[in-house]
Amino acid sequence: MTTEFESPDAAEAAFYDAFAATDLDAMAQVWLEGETAACVHPGGALLVGKAAVMQSWAEILTGATPPRIEYRLLNRILSADIQIHLVEERIQAGDDPESATGLVIATNVYARGPQGWRLSLHHASLPLMPRRAVEGSERRLH
Amino acid sequence: MTTEFESPDAAEAAFYDAFAATDLDAMAQVWLEGETAACVHPGGALLVGKAAVMQSWAEILTGATPPRIEYRLLNRILSADIQIHLVEERIQAGDDPESATGLVIATNVYARGPQGWRLSLHHASLPLMPRRAVEGSERRLH
Repeated sequence: MTTEFESPDAAEAAFYDAFAATDLDAMAQVWLEGETAACVHPGGALLVGKAAVMQSWAEILTGATPPRIEYRLLNRILSADIQIHLVEERIQAGDDPESATGLVIATNVYARGPQGWRLSLHHASLPLMPRRAVEGSERRLH
Repeated sequence: MTTEFESPDAAEAAFYDAFAATDLDAMAQVWLEGETAACVHPGGALLVGKAAVMQSWAEILTGATPPRIEYRLLNRILSADIQIHLVEERIQAGDDPESATGLVIATNVYARGPQGWRLSLHHASLPLMPRRAVEGSERRLH
């Protein structure tokens, strides 16, 4: 059965639900089919195509204890058939209630196709460095 | 004088030219005006709005020796008035010919407005970890 998402927000909620439930089938429903799908996990390389993206999620989710995930939409770029969300994610490993919460900044791109809104790109990164250290150094050019 | 870019590719070339030339005025021409502009530098937090974005570029570019930058388009998501590029950047500090080349993965979002195509989002991250280490660990959930 194929799920149709009526809005980018619905697809986004389903994405984080699937992640938090470590539900690979639900995760596969969220992603766009084909070679336009792309994913960058924090500190990771670019994965292109739904097969490569889902392979990465299989490795992340299979056997994992469901994490606690909160997400917050920080900014939105709109067009008729593409919507881009900038999202702050707070992720805590589910098997250790004392574990630190990891903060992630993600760009999520949703595309509207024949099967409703789907996730086309998830680019996630860790804000590792304090603001000054990143932007105030002439040695660190980018 | 305002520069109008006729395509996302032209805006992208201007972005990397401005970066490589450490030319803050040229950089300002590339970016979309207003609060939709957003930028995540590698390891950095989310900066929202053109003022915050340009402040960060002022800190990066002012007084810096022009770096060597090569970029390569890896994937593209298209719509009528938004275009998303996934780009591999290779950046070498200009003041040290022996310095290592830094590899960056960037999501660049271009929006078409009354002033042609402008950069609306630059989300850059460092592929720090080998592929297996990122995706193969159950402890590392994302």
